[in-house]
Amino acid sequence: MESVQVWDVFDVNCPSRAVMEHISSKWGVLVQILLLRSGTLRFSELRRAIGGVSEKMLSQTLQTLERDGLVNRLVHPVIPPHVDYSLTDLGVRAATTVNTLFELIGNNWAEFEAAQIAYDRRKATA
Amino acid sequence: MESVQVWDVFDVNCPSRAVMEHISSKWGVLVQILLLRSGTLRFSELRRAIGGVSEKMLSQTLQTLERDGLVNRLVHPVIPPHVDYSLTDLGVRAATTVNTLFELIGNNWAEFEAAQIAYDRRKATA
Repeated sequence: MESVQVWDVFDVNCPSRAVMEHISSKWGVLVQILLLRSGTLRFSELRRAIGGVSEKMLSQTLQTLERDGLVNRLVHPVIPPHVDYSLTDLGVRAATTVNTLFELIGNNWAEFEAAQIAYDRRKATA
Repeated sequence: MESVQVWDVFDVNCPSRAVMEHISSKWGVLVQILLLRSGTLRFSELRRAIGGVSEKMLSQTLQTLERDGLVNRLVHPVIPPHVDYSLTDLGVRAATTVNTLFELIGNNWAEFEAAQIAYDRRKATA
């Protein structure tokens, strides 16, 4: 009898957990939203647009998203080198969901802020 | 003339970026999905269900999500202490979007895996 593998994202070894960590990573979410809005960007344009990211972190983030099939990397054989990044079809779908999360935060910011203020007040008087 | 604050999530100081990091954090996404599926859980139940999480990390994750108004913490005044966690209405909305991301990964796993294999092959022969 064959065993059927049923996935469990709560299992530390579940491979989908690693991809989830890439898609929802601090810099990964911003890269996806930028590329969703802009279509195609060069490395230097991404770097300038994302406040606080280092060259190394951006490079690692793009490599991880490329390996997962979310980002296309197109090298133009010119001097100086010129590399374009864009989302794949799968990347557009992931980025659209990530963007929904950002919109949820923006559209409900008053509620988030009120919760934080109430929490800090409870802790201060506890 | 009043200045109107327009948010920019790409600004390192944008407050929505911090909330996004909490919602999409490694353990935060798993806590949200578990509570979305189960309704209410005790700390010990969450800990057992999430493979690899430490007591400290789970505790910090729950505190952060509670402060943002995503998670309710209900302390029952009994001995031994008994604390229930559940999602707020806002938490259900965030968790539902996070769950959509997990489903996207699960439903397209063949595509993710093929991309990873192709990437590793390109790197090995480069």
